[in-house]
Amino acid sequence: MKRTVSAKITGTVSEPAYLVWAVAVARHPGLLEEELTVTVDGEPVDYHEVESPHGGRLHVVPEAPVGEFQLDYRAVVEGRSEPEEAPEIDRISYRNPSRYVDSDRLAQVAAAHFRGMKGAETVEAVATWVNDHLLYLSGSSRVTDGATETYLARAGVCRDFAHLVITFLRARGLPARLAAVYAPGLTPMDFHAVAEVWLDGAWQVVDATRLAPRESMLRIATGRDAADTAFLNVLGGRMKLGRVDVTAAVDGDLPEEDPAAAVQLG
Amino acid sequence: MKRTVSAKITGTVSEPAYLVWAVAVARHPGLLEEELTVTVDGEPVDYHEVESPHGGRLHVVPEAPVGEFQLDYRAVVEGRSEPEEAPEIDRISYRNPSRYVDSDRLAQVAAAHFRGMKGAETVEAVATWVNDHLLYLSGSSRVTDGATETYLARAGVCRDFAHLVITFLRARGLPARLAAVYAPGLTPMDFHAVAEVWLDGAWQVVDATRLAPRESMLRIATGRDAADTAFLNVLGGRMKLGRVDVTAAVDGDLPEEDPAAAVQLG
Amino acid sequence: MKRTVSAKITGTVSEPAYLVWAVAVARHPGLLEEELTVTVDGEPVDYHEVESPHGGRLHVVPEAPVGEFQLDYRAVVEGRSEPEEAPEIDRISYRNPSRYVDSDRLAQVAAAHFRGMKGAETVEAVATWVNDHLLYLSGSSRVTDGATETYLARAGVCRDFAHLVITFLRARGLPARLAAVYAPGLTPMDFHAVAEVWLDGAWQVVDATRLAPRESMLRIATGRDAADTAFLNVLGGRMKLGRVDVTAAVDGDLPEEDPAAAVQLG
Amino acid sequence: MKRTVSAKITGTVSEPAYLVWAVAVARHPGLLEEELTVTVDGEPVDYHEVESPHGGRLHVVPEAPVGEFQLDYRAVVEGRSEPEEAPEIDRISYRNPSRYVDSDRLAQVAAAHFRGMKGAETVEAVATWVNDHLLYLSGSSRVTDGATETYLARAGVCRDFAHLVITFLRARGLPARLAAVYAPGLTPMDFHAVAEVWLDGAWQVVDATRLAPRESMLRIATGRDAADTAFLNVLGGRMKLGRVDVTAAVDGDLPEEDPAAAVQLG
Repeated sequence: MKRTVSAKITGTVSEPAYLVWAVAVARHPGLLEEELTVTVDGEPVDYHEVESPHGGRLHVVPEAPVGEFQLDYRAVVEGRSEPEEAPEIDRISYRNPSRYVDSDRLAQVAAAHFRGMKGAETVEAVATWVNDHLLYLSGSSRVTDGATETYLARAGVCRDFAHLVITFLRARGLPARLAAVYAPGLTPMDFHAVAEVWLDGAWQVVDATRLAPRESMLRIATGRDAADTAFLNVLGGRMKLGRVDVTAAVDGDLPEEDPAAAVQLG
Repeated sequence: MKRTVSAKITGTVSEPAYLVWAVAVARHPGLLEEELTVTVDGEPVDYHEVESPHGGRLHVVPEAPVGEFQLDYRAVVEGRSEPEEAPEIDRISYRNPSRYVDSDRLAQVAAAHFRGMKGAETVEAVATWVNDHLLYLSGSSRVTDGATETYLARAGVCRDFAHLVITFLRARGLPARLAAVYAPGLTPMDFHAVAEVWLDGAWQVVDATRLAPRESMLRIATGRDAADTAFLNVLGGRMKLGRVDVTAAVDGDLPEEDPAAAVQLG
Repeated sequence: MKRTVSAKITGTVSEPAYLVWAVAVARHPGLLEEELTVTVDGEPVDYHEVESPHGGRLHVVPEAPVGEFQLDYRAVVEGRSEPEEAPEIDRISYRNPSRYVDSDRLAQVAAAHFRGMKGAETVEAVATWVNDHLLYLSGSSRVTDGATETYLARAGVCRDFAHLVITFLRARGLPARLAAVYAPGLTPMDFHAVAEVWLDGAWQVVDATRLAPRESMLRIATGRDAADTAFLNVLGGRMKLGRVDVTAAVDGDLPEEDPAAAVQLG
Repeated sequence: MKRTVSAKITGTVSEPAYLVWAVAVARHPGLLEEELTVTVDGEPVDYHEVESPHGGRLHVVPEAPVGEFQLDYRAVVEGRSEPEEAPEIDRISYRNPSRYVDSDRLAQVAAAHFRGMKGAETVEAVATWVNDHLLYLSGSSRVTDGATETYLARAGVCRDFAHLVITFLRARGLPARLAAVYAPGLTPMDFHAVAEVWLDGAWQVVDATRLAPRESMLRIATGRDAADTAFLNVLGGRMKLGRVDVTAAVDGDLPEEDPAAAVQLG
């Protein structure tokens, strides 16, 4: 399987800005080609790469000058990467609540829905519940919303679906985390977010949106929730986003999605 | 400086419980003596140590049987440890919001209070604001409260003070994290929590409670907020806490606390 | 049925205080005896009565001087009052969300639990759900908690039970309000709060705590939620509550509580 | 002063709907002309009028059939109405917190901002603070947002400005309520919402948006907050709003707005 992905993002910097981007695919043995260009008003701007957990690669622009910003990224990946192990500290810390995964507030609700279930049964029930009860609705949520708001509103976008899945899983004792991915087949195409749960010795992908096959997703960033995986973090100054154009494709046909199969990112 | 610390904690296990303890001092070159005993109904219970970030050492009890639980910990530490560096990924990720540090929700409030300030000036102003405006009041907060609740209620305990400090610092662009510590001189004696801010190339301690000298505090655990540093995390089964008795002392006089001095844990 | 009720409340006024009390029984044709005494440091303090909606009678102390406050109330009521009608404006406005009845936030949750039910069926299902899923636990809630917090925490006291009942009823299209009452048979004895729902042409009592027979409850105040019915509202100055001792008794045996019966306050 | 106002509202009823409209001007001695037409698919639909507090007039459509809904309202008013008195029960109950006016949660914040001020000084300071600190931004808030969310986000529309004003006023001991009004001069024209505070024996208008002269505003509905004054309340069935076109004009020039003047609706 050969996958080609790209992102083209524009914005307007109105005060010299300190930007952290998570758009590059995570370390992958099959990375054949990769290009990243960052410009302001057509002139190249300095950036450097910083490693983030689980193979992630951030691209830091310490000082984007005022002007029209543009980032172009493109990568081609052949084959699949090795599955990642979960050391004990990860199996512990990915059960803690985090900013948008307030599993402590939703502990009683999660118990009411999923009490008495174990492992794979819980994962299946959580994914089904979230798919059945949430409406996928662009613009229905805010970036400050956590799982409790999503649970109450019963609507959201991919990150909200993933946050609620992760919340229920952690509340029921399963280590779970968020992965930002390129997702061939997603419609409309955009950056995507899915949950990963540690089960049977593997980080298995759970995507309650069911909007793209899990097999061909390509990992960008991994963390506790969207606070760790946003494609852009403006840490200083000011930039207003313009357009975000994402593409993700596989050579040949998309893999068939079998909801019952255990799938790992690779 | 020689420091002697201890914790004696009891509880009642009503369903076989999976417990994670953060009571041991973080890795320290001057650790002279250390004992940890875990029993249920007087019988020793298996546990093992897991490394956590920044030198932390968790003690995991995979299966505490039903009965009366008791943990006894004691350590003696001589001298100070080397300061820790902050790799770039930490300086980035410790600016993200986290479960009890909802710096995204409080961004506008933080800007209103501290706009126009830089570095040390911000740190000083934040510590003073929190000390001036919060009432230290046992039982006034809930474990699910984050910084927004504390900001609104204007009352809390040490973790709430630290969460609000960290929130303001992150919202103003400074990397900040939580440290659980033993704090000689604290009254009433208990586990303590303080903020650390990355400033001038060092993790400087900020304690808006001003209840103990920072110089003699001894690090236990370090993380984004209390979700990472709780002294006890019940990850399965059920245990009801009984008594928590903490001691922390220095040989000789307590160091004098100079609020204007930059102090690192050591 | 003859009912005798009393309240003895003490407090410490530290700044001259403007107090509004809701301790007197609502207008009742069978009111045989009634006494209300208000003192500070043993000296009588001026107060006057103000009518509140649905027959309620507030007692306003415009200026309680600094000192030890004491209120003593006692009333004897014979027989029952006439049922109250609900004009159309009440049937509309008691469907709106209010401070502690955030039926707009819980609309989707209510729909998920009670979709497809009508009238009496909804009332029965709501009362059963709240009784089954909430734990009655003194001190588990805050006075600023609304129904959403109660729903998430699954615990509370009588006002929290009533707020969640009212929230579900309003969200499902039924007019519902809160009544503060004296409740013979309640253990431990205290002021009590119940829901009233407009159904089949009557304001029927719903008490999901099931802690006292509805038949012998005696109305004090009526409103949208506890914001309207608190036994004490400190509108200026400062008073710290001391003891609150409530009694409520019927001559002879308590009425039998039949959960299936439609009961109105009287 | 002669004022002419109108509202034309369309929508699509997809399940027979029970609708409550607050679009008619409140009782006014100078009402010269008034027309209200309600149709579905061009056919007239039954409605009746219900009195709401403070002279308000709701129009209830008990059963709007499935189809394209249209409401047309037009009124001409000459001169001004008499000011309303505030009985003691209103001066008490308009100090309680309500759904979107969570003055209990914001009590400490209000004290920090406005401590030590009295009456008119508080009103002036609150209006100035809200005008200075909130950004008027269409689409920035949700209908479930209360004053706390507005305070944190520092942005909103007219109802959010009014809710925050009312919250601060109540928290500082002043009775305050919400009025929905027609507001000649408002740009862009729409329904408007303002605060009213009881001060010096009058309900004085406070409009922190400063978007229209207060003198020519014409009252529609009055209540604790937007839960009482929404122009449309769908109490059953389902209707999706289409267009809302509002006009409001005075004969001749708009009155000059003097921010320092005490103005009552009339």
